[in-house]
Amino acid sequence: MSKNQLNAALIIIGNEILSGRTPDKNINFLATELNKIGIHLKEVRVIPDEVEVIIDAVNKLRHQFEYVFTTGGIGPTHDDITSASIAKALGLPLVLDEEAERRLREHHGKKLNAARLKMAEIPEGATLIDNPISAAPGFRIENVFVLAGVPAILQVMFDHLKTMIDQGKPMISYENTVYIAEGTIAERLDLLQQEFDDVEIGSYPFFRQNRLGTCIVLRCSEKETLKKAQQGLESLVAEFDSEIVALRKQ
Amino acid sequence: MSKNQLNAALIIIGNEILSGRTPDKNINFLATELNKIGIHLKEVRVIPDEVEVIIDAVNKLRHQFEYVFTTGGIGPTHDDITSASIAKALGLPLVLDEEAERRLREHHGKKLNAARLKMAEIPEGATLIDNPISAAPGFRIENVFVLAGVPAILQVMFDHLKTMIDQGKPMISYENTVYIAEGTIAERLDLLQQEFDDVEIGSYPFFRQNRLGTCIVLRCSEKETLKKAQQGLESLVAEFDSEIVALRKQ
Repeated sequence: MSKNQLNAALIIIGNEILSGRTPDKNINFLATELNKIGIHLKEVRVIPDEVEVIIDAVNKLRHQFEYVFTTGGIGPTHDDITSASIAKALGLPLVLDEEAERRLREHHGKKLNAARLKMAEIPEGATLIDNPISAAPGFRIENVFVLAGVPAILQVMFDHLKTMIDQGKPMISYENTVYIAEGTIAERLDLLQQEFDDVEIGSYPFFRQNRLGTCIVLRCSEKETLKKAQQGLESLVAEFDSEIVALRKQ
Repeated sequence: MSKNQLNAALIIIGNEILSGRTPDKNINFLATELNKIGIHLKEVRVIPDEVEVIIDAVNKLRHQFEYVFTTGGIGPTHDDITSASIAKALGLPLVLDEEAERRLREHHGKKLNAARLKMAEIPEGATLIDNPISAAPGFRIENVFVLAGVPAILQVMFDHLKTMIDQGKPMISYENTVYIAEGTIAERLDLLQQEFDDVEIGSYPFFRQNRLGTCIVLRCSEKETLKKAQQGLESLVAEFDSEIVALRKQ
């Protein structure tokens, strides 16, 4: 893998996602933002608030990918076990971080009880990730980045996180949406994929206003290659006697 | 694990979710619907359209959980490799299913080309899952259920799937939403959790109309146990001088 192709995995920690109570909002946010800075999200796992499951997922994925991001489980309650689990996974002690404590003390004043102080405990040697909303920080330890589960806090933490990591060459993409059924165009797309094996060609069928259509997406980190594949797709589409709904370039 | 506690994993197959292009809609649907029929979703993986990754995920999860559901990758194009990958994972030949072919022929008529016919190829011995929308079926092989990625089709397939599987005892839940900050109530919730170790107690902070609050969720499959935990939570909350926003029972 070249340095242009940094990859990552994401671990969503939360019973509430697995029970259906809470629809996840973080996968799409992180997938989109990582893509913009050239980091290729290659796997997402949603797992329950269980120490052994968290340890297992973190240890599998941190050796397999350049970056691992986790969301959820860093609040003050009994079910917030992410920081302790990450420390165990890396064989590190969980310690009270002075700077994190200072931030929590500044934010909560006299209301800083033992439960809230738990949010200042991080694996020894970790670096804090800022949380301007509610003070309790995320942290980075080795290639693992531990973020809040609340979408607004996760998003503001990501702003700081971006300054802490190497960024890759962003993938660029081209989309062509046509009223041609996916099955009609499939064989020609397969040939196009064979011609351009560096380009990820995705095909997504839809049914809109009683008509079948397909959105074809080309993705690649090289502008020139994408341009050639795009020309190939355009001439392919032109062979079909169909109305082209839209041509979008991203 | 008792028969009351059937569990399952879900594999979302699709580069479009990992790139951020398409927000996932299937995790929440399946999590919610499985929960209703007493099947406990314990893990979700989102993985790319890559044969080896699919094989690896299916083989890990089908031995670990009672049921595995997959979504995506069963269309007519080059990137639809789920059926072939599942067949490989289970060491079975991929065969043209006569009934699936008949359905596709009835639906597409003369437009049934080679690409579309690929959608009738399933692992030998698999049982079809009906697709009244666009004919191309899903299938069950052993404890693996292969479903479409398009949400409307996945949802209609799930109606048939429900008739094919054992159902467990549904989890019942009780929610209490209060304007008490999570950190304030955390220690008391921890004691409640220790008292009711059969009850899953989740705590979800929110910030609404300039006020901090917490939604506390109790989940359990036993009505009587849930009732006792609910009484415990109610007296706990009553100790705090706060306005109770809502009491919801589900």
